[in-house]
Amino acid sequence: MTTGKPYVIGIDMGGTNTVFGIVDARGVVIASNSIKTRKHNKIEDYIDELYNETMRLVESADAKDKIYGIGVGAPNANYFTGVIEDGVNLPWPTPIPFAQMLSDKFGIPVAITNDANAAAIGEMTYGVARGLKDFIMITLGTGVGSGIVINGQVVYGHDGFAGELGHVIVKRNNGRLCGCGRTGCLETYCSATGVARTAREYLEITDTPSLLREIPISEITSKDVYDAAMKGDKLAKEVFNYTGTILGEALADFTVFSAPEAFVLFGGLAKAGDLLLKPIKEALEKNMLSIWKGKVKVLLSELKEADAAVLGASALGWEAKPLTEAQA
Amino acid sequence: MTTGKPYVIGIDMGGTNTVFGIVDARGVVIASNSIKTRKHNKIEDYIDELYNETMRLVESADAKDKIYGIGVGAPNANYFTGVIEDGVNLPWPTPIPFAQMLSDKFGIPVAITNDANAAAIGEMTYGVARGLKDFIMITLGTGVGSGIVINGQVVYGHDGFAGELGHVIVKRNNGRLCGCGRTGCLETYCSATGVARTAREYLEITDTPSLLREIPISEITSKDVYDAAMKGDKLAKEVFNYTGTILGEALADFTVFSAPEAFVLFGGLAKAGDLLLKPIKEALEKNMLSIWKGKVKVLLSELKEADAAVLGASALGWEAKPLTEAQA
Repeated sequence: MTTGKPYVIGIDMGGTNTVFGIVDARGVVIASNSIKTRKHNKIEDYIDELYNETMRLVESADAKDKIYGIGVGAPNANYFTGVIEDGVNLPWPTPIPFAQMLSDKFGIPVAITNDANAAAIGEMTYGVARGLKDFIMITLGTGVGSGIVINGQVVYGHDGFAGELGHVIVKRNNGRLCGCGRTGCLETYCSATGVARTAREYLEITDTPSLLREIPISEITSKDVYDAAMKGDKLAKEVFNYTGTILGEALADFTVFSAPEAFVLFGGLAKAGDLLLKPIKEALEKNMLSIWKGKVKVLLSELKEADAAVLGASALGWEAKPLTEAQA
Repeated sequence: MTTGKPYVIGIDMGGTNTVFGIVDARGVVIASNSIKTRKHNKIEDYIDELYNETMRLVESADAKDKIYGIGVGAPNANYFTGVIEDGVNLPWPTPIPFAQMLSDKFGIPVAITNDANAAAIGEMTYGVARGLKDFIMITLGTGVGSGIVINGQVVYGHDGFAGELGHVIVKRNNGRLCGCGRTGCLETYCSATGVARTAREYLEITDTPSLLREIPISEITSKDVYDAAMKGDKLAKEVFNYTGTILGEALADFTVFSAPEAFVLFGGLAKAGDLLLKPIKEALEKNMLSIWKGKVKVLLSELKEADAAVLGASALGWEAKPLTEAQA
């Protein structure tokens, strides 16, 4: 970082939007914008638009030749190889050597990791996890992702894919079908999608009156369940209790692995606040091995959702190095 | 390690025996011996005997003033504080500031960790995990312990107690009562004790003929089940299938956490070999998230049981530093 270049670019590639920003060394996003991820059928065209829009931002911020590196958070992105290996939610064939392609286009070093790891880095650098060396970021969005930090380092594992806690099996038998092809994964219960599934199940198998019965059942979202719960709807509150209990049980199991100081919850569902936090904390303590009872915090992310991903990705930009031949 | 002192002492404190040895820098145990852990009602008397017997060994090996440090593997030993915090299987009140007490007695630096972490270090330094930077040691003894290695480093967590994988809940409801006070822990099924419990259950709830019916039911051990299985006993083989399946399912879940290159099985039950390995590998592959199918090895420890613990503990001896006031 003695290059004198004061900025990095952070790029958060989501299934729908790609958000990018120019970030300074203190974590201030000095400019940001977004493009639609799915607009282009060819990855090359997507990269062209991303390059053009990013450079427009760079020029308007007078940051040309002042960019140290680019950090990217993307689904199934491999930190070690720079490759997006399997993009279930992306419109292009995989694997995509994304770091190399972006580095070729921009002419500066690029580092990539998955979106949950990027969020963890963002939280550690600028958010509620500042000063924590051991914590686990749990992202509660369409799916459940995770970024595991041990001794100040993100855990990548031997192949770059560690930290898929959304795919721990929480129901061994008769569990819900997951997008991964297996059944009973945590994310089928504790994602935004999982909350909607639980609400639909409850509406079908009970006669409990509920505000949610006014909505066509196939259209119910986690936001609808949240809104109903905030109005005191009993069934909707039970849905959050069920969701939080399963997540709290899972967090107790995760604790025995890396003994984190805290779990940090992030993403759309984390906005449910106490509706979700209360049953999580109750189940966590109830199921915790005695040596950790009362010792592990559950925190809510302090960063705005878009910012966290861009900031996290950008922090990775400071680590970016030119890819070696072997990696390319 | 430029002190010119060529040896370390490794001490493995088990619930029954305490084994200790003098080890050189290449991992050769040049002398070893053992004492009974439970012989003394006072920890001070135990340390006196341990000191006397160790020094006798040191003198006979002409190693006086040549010991760099002492490494200890002990139940619930905290690497950070040097304290044995909760010794369920030990005869003395806890917490015990063991590293400090031993360091005071011997006059050389002492480092301690739990027995499973010590075994992992031993395996990484001298055994089948040489060259692996990401692996998980699973110790299958009276209980189930684990030592998690990520990027070449043992995971201690924020408080020094990480890696209690024997206490992941594998049966959420109606699970077996565990020594930890909870129910459904992995170690109630997949330890030597768990195998004996499963055999007793099978004998009680089925009429399947079995060699094990010749043994008083309360006296059946995992060794008996192994012997019967090796003679082709159907019920005994089913017990190993059940045990291995539960362990394989759990290992698939552990994989999503740290993406290890291998699991290394260690301890009495690991000697069952293919009886256990086959169902483990089948369940692991069947339950594995697709990105890791066929990629994670299950290996058996290559070290003799006593040696592994002493060697692992001794390797920690090279890291031993005088305890600070804060830790004491």
